[in-house]
Amino acid sequence: MKVVIIGAGNVATVLGRKLLAANHQIIQVFARIPEMANALATELKATACNNWSGIDKKADFYLVAISDNALEEISDHLELNEQLIAHTAGAVSKEVLRGISDNYGVFYPLQSLRKEMKVDPEIPIVVDASNKKSLQLLKEIAGSISSQVDESKDEQRLQLHLAAVFVSNFVNHMYVQSEKYCQSHQLDFKKLLPLIKETAGRVQNYSPASVQTGPAIRFDSITIEKHLQLLNADPSLKRLYELLTKSIQQVG
Amino acid sequence: MKVVIIGAGNVATVLGRKLLAANHQIIQVFARIPEMANALATELKATACNNWSGIDKKADFYLVAISDNALEEISDHLELNEQLIAHTAGAVSKEVLRGISDNYGVFYPLQSLRKEMKVDPEIPIVVDASNKKSLQLLKEIAGSISSQVDESKDEQRLQLHLAAVFVSNFVNHMYVQSEKYCQSHQLDFKKLLPLIKETAGRVQNYSPASVQTGPAIRFDSITIEKHLQLLNADPSLKRLYELLTKSIQQVG
Repeated sequence: MKVVIIGAGNVATVLGRKLLAANHQIIQVFARIPEMANALATELKATACNNWSGIDKKADFYLVAISDNALEEISDHLELNEQLIAHTAGAVSKEVLRGISDNYGVFYPLQSLRKEMKVDPEIPIVVDASNKKSLQLLKEIAGSISSQVDESKDEQRLQLHLAAVFVSNFVNHMYVQSEKYCQSHQLDFKKLLPLIKETAGRVQNYSPASVQTGPAIRFDSITIEKHLQLLNADPSLKRLYELLTKSIQQVG
Repeated sequence: MKVVIIGAGNVATVLGRKLLAANHQIIQVFARIPEMANALATELKATACNNWSGIDKKADFYLVAISDNALEEISDHLELNEQLIAHTAGAVSKEVLRGISDNYGVFYPLQSLRKEMKVDPEIPIVVDASNKKSLQLLKEIAGSISSQVDESKDEQRLQLHLAAVFVSNFVNHMYVQSEKYCQSHQLDFKKLLPLIKETAGRVQNYSPASVQTGPAIRFDSITIEKHLQLLNADPSLKRLYELLTKSIQQVG
């Protein structure tokens, strides 16, 4: 399939590489910053473009991986001849693409993607479309780069995006808080890396609710009190500890 | 080395297996519940014991992996002839073992250990002791089953334990909340497993602070507002979302 990639950030880069590796032809990369368009275009053996009017209209599929804000305005800039177009955002309706083509949809990677990734992670892809034909096409494209393809409407995709925030952004924030605490107490955060790996690894096979451990779930008030004593010097971290402890005790 | 294991729970079991695999001889397993003592003793090719007076006094090393509460009372039950004894608790002072022997200390695995583990995780071990000779011995024993052995005094070990609560117990709670949300909205939590793996995998190589992503760190109020709308039906989850979002925005 002939593909135009709109965007040159992390998502555009990783999905672009995947599509190229799956033998699609990337004919063009669009980005408003010429250097970014050029860099990704070179990597994907495509031409670069940095103005909307220059977008090649002869592709079969237009993949839009730009910021949510930029997405809201894309229909002001682009009009296609009924070719398939899809965006990659979890929290934006597919309807932002209405008006560009009758064949539009969503191609949402349920994964955290970064250019510098060396190991190829599994990337579940959630698709949605304006009509059956487009949905079928998006499923085929997604299937060419992922073994996990699912369909979700806008609201369900937003719910998935919210669930993802908990297991990714909020989890990483726990790592950040722990790292920060370690730094301020001359502890080596790296010592915790095997535990981080094991905690994430365990829920690959067990329900998280069945493997909750620690002083909170045991209602071990002696240990909790010791921890709170340590946290007296850091009121906001102490409050976070208290709230999460309470949340664990309420939810199980 | 001849070892007596006191306790037959998760930590006793996993460390017992490791010690046996490292060619130590487990001569006895003590647990108050006979069935538990028997089960682990059989696995470790040791004799079982379920009363304190029956503990074999001819071992070189006594490893105590029992609950924090039980630890506080152990010196009422046991007296040794200067052999080495160490407990495995992160949040309990080594001094609870004072009086049992002059040679006592801590052998704290900085890992979440469960009997049903199939894959052998890396287990950093943090040691502490009442004197140099005991410290040296504990380091050697720890070194026989782990490539990461460190020394920490009581307070520093408690701090590590607190830092571990964030990356393990609190992280798992994020998984639990996400799983619960998925269940109540007919979403398949399993779709998030690759993302969970990637999020934990990334901080093996990058500082968590450098890889924080998501609407909170981007101050993306439109997406945050969409998420909060979804959470109107669940006030306590909504409050947790708001607090974590605020915490990310404060800390970075």
